[in-house]
Amino acid sequence: MTKKYTVAVVGATGAVGTKIIEQLIKRKFPMAQLKPLASKRSAGKELAVGNERYKIEEATPEAFEGIDFAFFSAGGSVSKELAPEAAKRGAIVIDNTSAFRMDPDTPLVVPEVNPNDLATHQGIIANPNCSTIQMVAALQPIRQAFGLKKVIVSTYQAVSGAGISAVNELKEQSVHFDEPAGVEAQILPVKSDKKHYPIARNVIPQIDIFTENGFTFEEMKMINETKKILHDEALPVAATCVRVPVTVGHSESVYIEIERNDVSVEEIKEILKTAPGIALHDDPATQHYPMPLYTDGLDDVFVGRIRKDLAEDTGFHLWIVADNLLKGAALNSIQIAEKMIEDGLK
Amino acid sequence: MTKKYTVAVVGATGAVGTKIIEQLIKRKFPMAQLKPLASKRSAGKELAVGNERYKIEEATPEAFEGIDFAFFSAGGSVSKELAPEAAKRGAIVIDNTSAFRMDPDTPLVVPEVNPNDLATHQGIIANPNCSTIQMVAALQPIRQAFGLKKVIVSTYQAVSGAGISAVNELKEQSVHFDEPAGVEAQILPVKSDKKHYPIARNVIPQIDIFTENGFTFEEMKMINETKKILHDEALPVAATCVRVPVTVGHSESVYIEIERNDVSVEEIKEILKTAPGIALHDDPATQHYPMPLYTDGLDDVFVGRIRKDLAEDTGFHLWIVADNLLKGAALNSIQIAEKMIEDGLK
Repeated sequence: MTKKYTVAVVGATGAVGTKIIEQLIKRKFPMAQLKPLASKRSAGKELAVGNERYKIEEATPEAFEGIDFAFFSAGGSVSKELAPEAAKRGAIVIDNTSAFRMDPDTPLVVPEVNPNDLATHQGIIANPNCSTIQMVAALQPIRQAFGLKKVIVSTYQAVSGAGISAVNELKEQSVHFDEPAGVEAQILPVKSDKKHYPIARNVIPQIDIFTENGFTFEEMKMINETKKILHDEALPVAATCVRVPVTVGHSESVYIEIERNDVSVEEIKEILKTAPGIALHDDPATQHYPMPLYTDGLDDVFVGRIRKDLAEDTGFHLWIVADNLLKGAALNSIQIAEKMIEDGLK
Repeated sequence: MTKKYTVAVVGATGAVGTKIIEQLIKRKFPMAQLKPLASKRSAGKELAVGNERYKIEEATPEAFEGIDFAFFSAGGSVSKELAPEAAKRGAIVIDNTSAFRMDPDTPLVVPEVNPNDLATHQGIIANPNCSTIQMVAALQPIRQAFGLKKVIVSTYQAVSGAGISAVNELKEQSVHFDEPAGVEAQILPVKSDKKHYPIARNVIPQIDIFTENGFTFEEMKMINETKKILHDEALPVAATCVRVPVTVGHSESVYIEIERNDVSVEEIKEILKTAPGIALHDDPATQHYPMPLYTDGLDDVFVGRIRKDLAEDTGFHLWIVADNLLKGAALNSIQIAEKMIEDGLK
C-alpha cells in the first residue's frame, strides 16, 4: 500500500493556495488528510474545492503538529514566521514566497532542472518565482545540450501573479474602461507601494518594488534565482519585468547565447521536443505559437518563435509561456513534493 | 508672408489618416488647401475634423495635380500604385506604408535622427515603421554620444497599429470577455492571415506575417529600417514583436551595448534630457516611468527604466513608449514635411 501523507496548505484562500488544493486533488497526491490553514480572519470558514468541503483552521505553530508536507503561499512574512515552526515539527515546508529562496541553506528547486538539490534540504524547500520557473525549465535542456552563456529576458506577466484582487481589478477596469467615469486603480502595480495605475489597456513596467540599482525585486529574483537554480553564479542574466492586462499566463521574450556557434534552430527544437514538462508550439506556417489565453489551466511550459539571431552565431530568441499559477506556483510546488516521495526523501 | 501649400491625405478615413488631418490643423501646418482622398467607396462622403467639414475625393492619379505634399496611409498597394503618380505630378509624397522604405532611392527619415537624408529625395520620402521610429529617436542621442554596437528589442504594441477595426475588436472583446458566450476574433493578429486569435486578456507574438527566416515582417522592418536610418548596415539588431491589449501606445524593452564601457546611467539620462523629441520619465523612487495609457495623444518619445546591465559594462536597458499613431506615424510624417519646408526643399 502506498504511504499517505498529511498535507497543510497555508494561504488556502489565495490565488495560489486554491490552485494547490485543486492540483493536489487532480493529481491524486497521496493524502491521508488535507488541512487548509489561513489567517485568523478566515479561520472557521468553509472552503469548497470540487465536491469537497474543508474547514479552514488558523495557521499557528501548533497547527503543523503531525503534518508531513506544508505548502506555504500566504506572503513572505507568514513564511518567515511559521515555516521554521512547521519544519521544527517535522513537516517538509514547500514555500511559494521569496522568504527563503536566496538562503544558502534552502534548496530552490524546479524538479525538471535541479532535482538533486532536494536531498540537501533542512526542512524548507523554496519554490522559485513564477517567471523564473518557466524560463529555467525551457533553458535547462538547451543548456545541457549546448551550454548557456547569456540570458536577456523581457516579460509579459499576468495580473494573477499579484493575487485575486488584481484579477478583479483588471476585470472591473476592462468592462468600464470606455465609460465616461473611467477606471480606478488601487492594487497594481504593487498594493503596498505609493502609486497605483490602471492595468486595463495599459502595460506597467513595474512588478514588485524597486531595488537600489534601478531593477525591481521581481527582476532581481529572475536574475538571482536563475543563477542559483542553474548553479552558475557567473552566468550573465538580465530581466525587464512588465505587467500586462492578461488574467493568467506569463509570457517571456528570451534572448540566449549558447556555448556553441554551429547549432541550428532545428537542433534546439529537437532538444525541446523531448524535454520533460516542455511543449513545443512552433510552426510559423500555421501561426502556431504559445499564447497565455491558451495555456490557462495547462501544466506544460510552452515554447515557440525559436529563431537564430541574424548577427550572433551563438544567439537564439525564444518565446516562453506558462500558466503562472500552475507551473509557476502550485504545480511546481506539488511536483517538488512528488519528487521527494519518489526519491525517498519523505 | 509664409508660403502656403496644398496638401492631400490618402487614406483620410483610416486610423492614421484621421490623425494626420488632426495634426495638420493642430500644428498649424501652412496649408492653402486640404484634400482628403480615399477609395472609391468613401469618395463623396463628408469628413468632419474639429469644426471643419471636408468632402472626400477618390484617390486617382489626376487627384494629385497641383498638390505640394501628399501624405499616404492607405496600405502598401495603394502607395505602390499612386505614390509615383503623385510624385510625377510634382507632389512630395510622404508615405506611411512599407512600400518604399527599403528602396535605396527613397530616404527613410525620422527628422531628429537623419534629417540630412531628406535632401536626397526623388519625390517620395518614406515614414518608418511606428515601432522603429520611437526606438531610433531614443537611441540616436545615445549613439552620438557613446556609440552603439548592439540592439535587442522586445515590443509591447498597441492594437491601433492594426487599424480602427482592431481597436474595435479589442473594445468589444474587453466588455464581453467574462460572459459565457466569450469573444470572437476576426482581425488580429493579421486580418489577411489564416488564423485569428482574441487579443483581450492575451498577448500575440505575431505582428504582420512571417518571413522565411522565422522572424515576422514587423520584426524584419525594425531590424532593417533601424540599420538604414542609422546608416549602419553592420549594426546587430534583433527584434521580437508582440501585440498586447492596449489601444494606443507602443512600449519597447530595449537592451543596447554602446562603444564605451565607462558610461553611467546618469550620463545616459543627461543626454536624453536635452535630446529633441525625447521626454525622460525615469524616477523609480516616485514610480515614474513611461506607460502607454499616459502617452496617448502626446508628441514625445518617453524613456525610462534606464539601468546599467549587471554583467556587461557596455550594456544598458531602456523602456521606450510613444503614441504609435502620432510620433509613430502621423506626427513624424508631418515633421518630415515641416523639416523639408525649413530646409528649403519645397
